[in-house]
Amino acid sequence: MKTLLLTQKDVEKVLTPSVANDTVEKAFRAYGMRQGEMPAKIYLYFPRGDLRSMPAYLHGEGFDIAGVKCVTVHPQNQVINLPSVMAVVILNDPETGYPLAIMDGTYLTCIRTGAAGAIAAKFLSRKNSEIAGFIGCGAQARSQLSCLLEVRDIRRIKIWQFPGDKACARAFRQWAKAAYPIEAVISSNIDDVTLNADIVVTSTPSRVALVNRVSPGTHINAIGADAPNKQEISPDILKKAKVVIDDWAQASHSGEINVPLKQKLISKKNINASLGDIVAGKKKGRTSNEEITLFDATGLAIQDIACTYEVYKALKNKRGIKSIKLF
Amino acid sequence: MKTLLLTQKDVEKVLTPSVANDTVEKAFRAYGMRQGEMPAKIYLYFPRGDLRSMPAYLHGEGFDIAGVKCVTVHPQNQVINLPSVMAVVILNDPETGYPLAIMDGTYLTCIRTGAAGAIAAKFLSRKNSEIAGFIGCGAQARSQLSCLLEVRDIRRIKIWQFPGDKACARAFRQWAKAAYPIEAVISSNIDDVTLNADIVVTSTPSRVALVNRVSPGTHINAIGADAPNKQEISPDILKKAKVVIDDWAQASHSGEINVPLKQKLISKKNINASLGDIVAGKKKGRTSNEEITLFDATGLAIQDIACTYEVYKALKNKRGIKSIKLF
Repeated sequence: MKTLLLTQKDVEKVLTPSVANDTVEKAFRAYGMRQGEMPAKIYLYFPRGDLRSMPAYLHGEGFDIAGVKCVTVHPQNQVINLPSVMAVVILNDPETGYPLAIMDGTYLTCIRTGAAGAIAAKFLSRKNSEIAGFIGCGAQARSQLSCLLEVRDIRRIKIWQFPGDKACARAFRQWAKAAYPIEAVISSNIDDVTLNADIVVTSTPSRVALVNRVSPGTHINAIGADAPNKQEISPDILKKAKVVIDDWAQASHSGEINVPLKQKLISKKNINASLGDIVAGKKKGRTSNEEITLFDATGLAIQDIACTYEVYKALKNKRGIKSIKLF
Repeated sequence: MKTLLLTQKDVEKVLTPSVANDTVEKAFRAYGMRQGEMPAKIYLYFPRGDLRSMPAYLHGEGFDIAGVKCVTVHPQNQVINLPSVMAVVILNDPETGYPLAIMDGTYLTCIRTGAAGAIAAKFLSRKNSEIAGFIGCGAQARSQLSCLLEVRDIRRIKIWQFPGDKACARAFRQWAKAAYPIEAVISSNIDDVTLNADIVVTSTPSRVALVNRVSPGTHINAIGADAPNKQEISPDILKKAKVVIDDWAQASHSGEINVPLKQKLISKKNINASLGDIVAGKKKGRTSNEEITLFDATGLAIQDIACTYEVYKALKNKRGIKSIKLF
């Protein structure tokens, strides 16, 4: 028996925004139906970064698959021309344990996060959403936009230009206009970006609340906070919004809610539902045009394993795919 | 940059019993010197097996390396001609997170466990040990013997024949006599095997105490218990022996001590030291010819990462070694 070896190029061919959305939606549904096991991710801490080991096992909703994503986060890597976030996924057959595939998880991590935002928007944003405000303009903003466009007819995006960094906002605007038939504007006034937007997407490494004002009816995808002490959204917004998390253990430890929880500005009562429960139909998504909704994404191993399985299934019988006999 | 791909054959070339012993001893010393991070392994449970994700980071004693071993345990695999235990290790550079190598961990898991037994025997068994009794005669018994012979001049082994399974004991005897200049005898009386032995090695999947009697001065390597409710040694022996564990969190959860701890037949006070503390010189090993010593091995991620690093260093500049550009 051989183990498939799949590179980023292989993964990119399969995991289009549309396929990633469908796969991640199924993963959240299975998780909401209690058809997934996902112990909290465990960390190793290095002087300049960390490693996260993320195992998951999905059964039901067409899944019967397990595996582990090992992802490293080293914010200073850009200086040496390496991605800050790199990942490898090992996919195992739950029946025998056999390692079916070893796969690059670098692009996969990016697109599955975009897909989680899109699925949250599908269940939580107004159906007629047309304007999206972006706080954060890096690689994750692109994934968020690409996946979001599959579920909502976004016609205009507003991009916040972080003080002192014109290049990032401009590069994102240029890329977005080249890739999609949308209008894209840049503003250095963050309120201009977050007010009068149907959907606000935050994907910065911020440790202070950046977003202070949104209009009634806005949906917020709070993507950036993924470690203790990170936050992007004013606790005042969290207090009045319908807050939906991906997973309580992870979100309370390192998601958007982690700082205001520690500061006792909000409590577990402020959390309305998990996305899995909403996708599985156990809890309601948006219930009015006026409510403000917020999705706190930390990134779940079930998303990774579901997406890896999709790539494996699509390529396992294709010609030209590498494999190795490990033992 | 490329990631090395190393198969079982590659690993076998480097990790001889002698190299495995040296490497595992250094890993225990680093761990004893608090130069290693190792969160408790996390489990996924399947209908017919489990997956364990084992991350570790070693710094000091010549190490600066991190990684994760993903190991599956499916006891019924022999029926379909697959190993019960299969593993893959991802090795990461702590400085950047880069995945330096992906390596088969199946043979590695076996030999690093043998090496832990050997290092325990080096510090805990009498130097003049010549006779070893084996309870359990599978692949792990072979690893234990191969590694033990590097540290003690064993001249005679006694093998217990489990009622109803003649083939396993015979195959082990035949292999041992062909591989080494030693005498090897089989007995179906377990006391004959464990009494008048200098070292007793247990490597069975037992859930009841098998070993009830040992002679004064015996060292026991209790290897088999690696899951809750497994045990091989009578609690009476544990109560009077100097008990040395590899790691408290793992041993109390799933090692030899887990059942008698739960039954309150022993308490944490009965645990004398961890092997890392002894190897690092912080605690004493054997202190008399009469005392009974026991090493409770559960298998640590630091052993895996240290051994994987050794293989990586030995092969990274060798011709003919496979590699892959993941992203």
